[in-house]
Amino acid sequence: MEISDNYIYLDHSATTPVDPCVVEAMAPYGSEHFGNSESSHLFGREAANALEEARQTVADVLGCRLSEIVFTGSGTEADNLAIRGVAWAAMRDGRGRHIVTTSIEHPAVGHTVDQLRDLFGFEVTRAPVDEYGQVNVDDLAQAIRPDTVLVSVMMANNEFGTVQPMVKIGRLCRERGIVFHTDAVQAPGRLPLELDDMHVDLMALSAHKFYGPKGVGLLYVRRDTQLAPALTGGGHERERRPGTVNVGGAVGLATALRLVEEDRVAECARVRRLRDRLIEGVLASTPDSRLTGHPRQRLCHHASFAFKGVEGESVVLNLDLAGIAASSGSACAEGEPEPSTVLKAMGLPRDWLLGSLRLTLGRSTGEADVDRVAAVLPGIVRELRACCGG
Amino acid sequence: MEISDNYIYLDHSATTPVDPCVVEAMAPYGSEHFGNSESSHLFGREAANALEEARQTVADVLGCRLSEIVFTGSGTEADNLAIRGVAWAAMRDGRGRHIVTTSIEHPAVGHTVDQLRDLFGFEVTRAPVDEYGQVNVDDLAQAIRPDTVLVSVMMANNEFGTVQPMVKIGRLCRERGIVFHTDAVQAPGRLPLELDDMHVDLMALSAHKFYGPKGVGLLYVRRDTQLAPALTGGGHERERRPGTVNVGGAVGLATALRLVEEDRVAECARVRRLRDRLIEGVLASTPDSRLTGHPRQRLCHHASFAFKGVEGESVVLNLDLAGIAASSGSACAEGEPEPSTVLKAMGLPRDWLLGSLRLTLGRSTGEADVDRVAAVLPGIVRELRACCGG
Repeated sequence: MEISDNYIYLDHSATTPVDPCVVEAMAPYGSEHFGNSESSHLFGREAANALEEARQTVADVLGCRLSEIVFTGSGTEADNLAIRGVAWAAMRDGRGRHIVTTSIEHPAVGHTVDQLRDLFGFEVTRAPVDEYGQVNVDDLAQAIRPDTVLVSVMMANNEFGTVQPMVKIGRLCRERGIVFHTDAVQAPGRLPLELDDMHVDLMALSAHKFYGPKGVGLLYVRRDTQLAPALTGGGHERERRPGTVNVGGAVGLATALRLVEEDRVAECARVRRLRDRLIEGVLASTPDSRLTGHPRQRLCHHASFAFKGVEGESVVLNLDLAGIAASSGSACAEGEPEPSTVLKAMGLPRDWLLGSLRLTLGRSTGEADVDRVAAVLPGIVRELRACCGG
Repeated sequence: MEISDNYIYLDHSATTPVDPCVVEAMAPYGSEHFGNSESSHLFGREAANALEEARQTVADVLGCRLSEIVFTGSGTEADNLAIRGVAWAAMRDGRGRHIVTTSIEHPAVGHTVDQLRDLFGFEVTRAPVDEYGQVNVDDLAQAIRPDTVLVSVMMANNEFGTVQPMVKIGRLCRERGIVFHTDAVQAPGRLPLELDDMHVDLMALSAHKFYGPKGVGLLYVRRDTQLAPALTGGGHERERRPGTVNVGGAVGLATALRLVEEDRVAECARVRRLRDRLIEGVLASTPDSRLTGHPRQRLCHHASFAFKGVEGESVVLNLDLAGIAASSGSACAEGEPEPSTVLKAMGLPRDWLLGSLRLTLGRSTGEADVDRVAAVLPGIVRELRACCGG
């Protein structure tokens, strides 16, 4: 028996297990149908056909054209391609060097605009968020300048789950004629991906966040969006993303996306009920605890808390000892002793800042799991406060 | 029975089937040990351990330190990280904007230096090659300037198989104190990867070229090499390559690299004998045919030809009909009607330029396979010349 058999996994925003149906769909593209999709012989055509079928599956889910889909090596690469691609195309064409984003983006966006600023002479304006982590559309409107070439706002936050007012932001960008990018990595299976309603021009996804494989992402690129390649090489993916395409990975992403979308409404309702039960249980049983992020406009699977005078990472380690996988924030920032910049941006008081805990539910989560967390957590927090003189 | 069962695959430089042992090694990292290697809980530690074991395997093969290995999403991304990384670090530190490379690089290198030139103000000098596709070290030495920050020379060419004088080039770069990058994507299992003998500072590999999975590459980065990230995001891979690490892919790359290296000397000798038999058979049976690339200093598995007055792509299509997978050059440039810039750089006469054929052998190749090609090819070339008035 595996040690992990009785272990409760509540870190689905960090990554998810690959759906066995996805594993099965990918399997033929290893040793058997292994061709390079650029080759013109039988093996190449097999690979190209599988790749285009995967693209069609994605296009059907997103309601877009085949030519608007670019497979990448990760969600981070998709964000990089979107931001660098728009920025460099604008630089090349002399169309301005100003980017508007928010103070709560994932590092794939935040560090990318920082590098554009530090190395390539771009200017960046970060719109603030309110106490629930939501951007105000008027703030975004005020940040836009005549030389703004891109607005990048994440669809839903990985650390505290808040969903942004995408339709309003998209409408603003469309009215002003500015390209709108969104990091939607947390969204599939949890939010509808209505590209046209949101007026999104660029949207980044990552397969391993929705029961697909690691090492494959996707960028939706609305037709006529000017994009320079962020990486350069062969002419793959219509000259937008070079390198031999990971055909099995593309098949895996497409299969996973189709499956989470088919199941989205029912599964989201199920998980939301459990999530609310978890939130109520934790807040009722643990003194000096609060929910972070928006109470209602948040991802259906996402519960995030702050505990006064406790280190979140210590809570995570003690939950781990109790057989529960949780996170103190984003897995991408794990190990950093600094308080989360995202929580700071939300204006959380100083003595609460280090005490964040994220519990993200998924397909494997049942009622017994959330009840166990709500039962175990108060004791852990109490002991940490006692031993650390909190 | 699959249609491909009797089909002869001679396009191992485009891609290779994943070794069943590699498939097996990767399998646990899908649905079972699926953690994010940055997470601090049990699932995360399992993933981090698997990742570091894979890194150790690679370090053992390459004879380098763990910290010198960066897993990427492809060989192309590894080349991009090397070249952009050195260029941007130099730009940031005001150390010069000149790059030396050759006229026969893969687009992952060639198009990357082009973008650095066109968008970011770098200057690029391309050293020529001789009729065998080999760079002259004196030409490289002459190309180096006081503001040169990088020399990039591929270890062995994908289209015509020629191996470059790496030890001499590396020594030159070391003497001049210039960072030396090599695209070694064609090398594993075919050439020894002696990093210190070659004085290589940066070396890019791609797993799917040596019986590993698609969607994972590697950059060796010698300690103390100044490198800005080419993509930005989380702090993964010591701040050099962001994005959730594809743990299964890293395990697959490491396993595949270990297996091809263990078997390299014997398998290379076997394949070289078959390759020489193929070259002799084709040249003897097909009038107006010639070997391209170096007759001896070439990859052990690589045969490349030019046929006067014939289109290579037509030869490939007819071979495909005869059940043989071949290539007219690089899979990364497939579909381009232009004659290969690489063959032009080698000074091939005009009426031979379009008539290139690449046959690259591998583990599955036997004597009967190469004999069948040598038997079938002359008729195909003859008929194409007859029908097209060649």
